[in-house]
Amino acid sequence: MVQYASPALDLSFAALSDATRRGIIDQLGRADASISSLAEKFQMTLTGMKKHVQVLERAGLVVTEKVGRVRTCKIGKGGLEAEAAWIDAHRKLFKARFDALDEIISEMKQEESNGSAS
Amino acid sequence: MVQYASPALDLSFAALSDATRRGIIDQLGRADASISSLAEKFQMTLTGMKKHVQVLERAGLVVTEKVGRVRTCKIGKGGLEAEAAWIDAHRKLFKARFDALDEIISEMKQEESNGSAS
Repeated sequence: MVQYASPALDLSFAALSDATRRGIIDQLGRADASISSLAEKFQMTLTGMKKHVQVLERAGLVVTEKVGRVRTCKIGKGGLEAEAAWIDAHRKLFKARFDALDEIISEMKQEESNGSAS
Repeated sequence: MVQYASPALDLSFAALSDATRRGIIDQLGRADASISSLAEKFQMTLTGMKKHVQVLERAGLVVTEKVGRVRTCKIGKGGLEAEAAWIDAHRKLFKARFDALDEIISEMKQEESNGSAS
């Protein structure tokens, strides 16, 4: 059996599968923000925003820190590197395959035109 | 309200959040395969494999074609381009932020050492 287990990628891709959570990452890429300011920006209850932030935090995409009564969110240190690495490796794999198919097709066309010329 | 809706990215990141589905993409990046050969490789029932392939197909990451009794799976034409674009844009955003923070920290250290020297 082939093994591809990576609980870290399971969590981070699942975290990225929601538009609001991608939006939070986008915002935190520009500036750190408190949960309440994120809730306001995304027109969401504080409870709803806390849940989204927890999903991002469990995936390591966001870290939070509570100072006094304010919990501030910032981008996690990993910064999408593992996710980018997986996607890039597979894009390259696909590109190599598509290129190989293109070559086969162009060889077939070449043979066809040689055949019709003879 | 900030809008980040992209149902296509919702579907594809959700599809990628499962180790078996990432494994299927990895396999199809090397060679097209029938559902039954994938089921065998991943030691899974045909029904279980069909469900995974359907999730990948809905996300546009895989296309299938039935010839006779065999359904063959191959990589979708989009080939992770949209997912890579989103991740790359945000990696750049984070990098710029981390670089800016590094600069602030090194300026603070500089000021501190100037202060202790005076």
